[in-house]
Amino acid sequence: MKIALDAMGGDFAPQAAVAGALLAAERLAGKATIVLIGQEDAVRPLLPTTGFAPGAFEFVPASQVIEMGEHPTKAYQQKQDSSIAVGYRLLHSGEVEAFCSAGSTGAMLVGAMFTVKTVPGVLRPAIANFVPKLNGEFGILLDVGANAECKPEMLEQFGELGSLYAQYVLGVAHPRVGLMNLGEEEGKGTALTQAAHQLLKINPHIDFVGNLEGRDLFNGKAHVVVCDGFTGNILLKMAESVYEILAEKNMHDPFFDRFNYEAIGGSPILGINDNAIIGHGRSTPMAVGNMLVQGYNMAASGIVDQIKATFKS
Amino acid sequence: MKIALDAMGGDFAPQAAVAGALLAAERLAGKATIVLIGQEDAVRPLLPTTGFAPGAFEFVPASQVIEMGEHPTKAYQQKQDSSIAVGYRLLHSGEVEAFCSAGSTGAMLVGAMFTVKTVPGVLRPAIANFVPKLNGEFGILLDVGANAECKPEMLEQFGELGSLYAQYVLGVAHPRVGLMNLGEEEGKGTALTQAAHQLLKINPHIDFVGNLEGRDLFNGKAHVVVCDGFTGNILLKMAESVYEILAEKNMHDPFFDRFNYEAIGGSPILGINDNAIIGHGRSTPMAVGNMLVQGYNMAASGIVDQIKATFKS
Repeated sequence: MKIALDAMGGDFAPQAAVAGALLAAERLAGKATIVLIGQEDAVRPLLPTTGFAPGAFEFVPASQVIEMGEHPTKAYQQKQDSSIAVGYRLLHSGEVEAFCSAGSTGAMLVGAMFTVKTVPGVLRPAIANFVPKLNGEFGILLDVGANAECKPEMLEQFGELGSLYAQYVLGVAHPRVGLMNLGEEEGKGTALTQAAHQLLKINPHIDFVGNLEGRDLFNGKAHVVVCDGFTGNILLKMAESVYEILAEKNMHDPFFDRFNYEAIGGSPILGINDNAIIGHGRSTPMAVGNMLVQGYNMAASGIVDQIKATFKS
Repeated sequence: MKIALDAMGGDFAPQAAVAGALLAAERLAGKATIVLIGQEDAVRPLLPTTGFAPGAFEFVPASQVIEMGEHPTKAYQQKQDSSIAVGYRLLHSGEVEAFCSAGSTGAMLVGAMFTVKTVPGVLRPAIANFVPKLNGEFGILLDVGANAECKPEMLEQFGELGSLYAQYVLGVAHPRVGLMNLGEEEGKGTALTQAAHQLLKINPHIDFVGNLEGRDLFNGKAHVVVCDGFTGNILLKMAESVYEILAEKNMHDPFFDRFNYEAIGGSPILGINDNAIIGHGRSTPMAVGNMLVQGYNMAASGIVDQIKATFKS
């Protein structure tokens, strides 16, 4: 299996990206080849010549880089030889089975929609993020930013997508799905959450446990927490800031240490025809390494086929 | 000055309420009389007969209690002799200058709208909550649940209300106002936040610093963080759960300890014609005591007159 990495993506690329690829290569030895995509002069010299199994790495040149400040759609269309555009072409053609990048989130989303495309039947893909639970498990929060505004049917589908991911990638046998809201009672919330509640409740593919409150993000009520991308993005960034404040204060704890995005790797885009993962802009080698392993796990799980089958009907 | 307390409000009432009143009475000695409202048989026996200055307490009987599970509007209208209804009547008639309750949030909001009424010019009152800042200050987050759905003009007004509160009650000379959003750039967000951004930007009464992200809640970028009640409620409850998890793990720190709602007291309803504060359902004596002191500070600051003057034009 081949897993592609945008070697130019992230604030500390290409060094952190290549160093992360080395970490992942050791863990994926015999299972996957890592395909590094980037500018030849920048990436080639960083690749090890010894110490790794032959074929642990491949290199695919891409002469351009989409910068963080660029307009995602314009940049993706104009920079056809950017590492992100090349990565999505490899993914779409089936030459690689997953594509990971800590580069522009916007361009990663554009490539997902334009090149890989949404699974038929899925209204809009969502970005999922992992949330540590007090019971030691990880939960999934989605959407965390692909769709600032949502329709009830989109939230319903996020519940299905998250449930499939929990089941097939995280190995949760019977994932419970909850709807983030401002109160537990069924009638609470906005017009959006009230309508989404009713759709989630009667959806036969999921185990819907009802409304959740902000305090339920870390407890075991639900494995999958559904919300619009506006709410999810704010919650995610606030949780990240809590972790950073604790780390700065040198307050360590097994639960809170699992907030560290480096240990998680990246955020998968769910609902597209292939496996794509967006990494944190500040990705360290550890974060990149874990993102690649996550890409491998996603591809190995066959999650995309499960999503396609579920939304076919 | 007289500050009224719903002695029947909260999970641990009337004991915790009366115990909190005693704490506040010591701190407000010579400045305010605390008016306890509730069922005579339940409250009277708890009141001290010695040890306090004469006139430290008054008692006003109210034969009914609005329970947490009741429909707020129905209960408020039907239970005319409930402690919340009696409290709002005392407030509206000017017999007390602030009313505090840890009882039903819904009934407290209904009473605010029906009896005390919205300040002319204010579209909708908001519930404000205090957020500890890393720099040692407290910031204000609003709305945290009065309005699940908002119009851009409401968010603009929340910026004004929060700014006035920061200035006149918290003593921040030049409060900075920020808009909670999913990105810092001006064009980011939902139709609501995009439109609200433009209104906040040109509002002459506030110092608008632009969009904030979830990670900015605890830093010093803005004293006043504006959002719809859906977002604010979820953020607030998540922050509370972080504090509770830390406390359970016995992880203490001066910054995180300031998340303790007991130290803050309650959440003022801003934009109504009098001073009303909603306490946490689980209010302890310490929380009730601080809520009453907060009620005194609010009344003493003349914040309502400032709000009336600002929205008159």
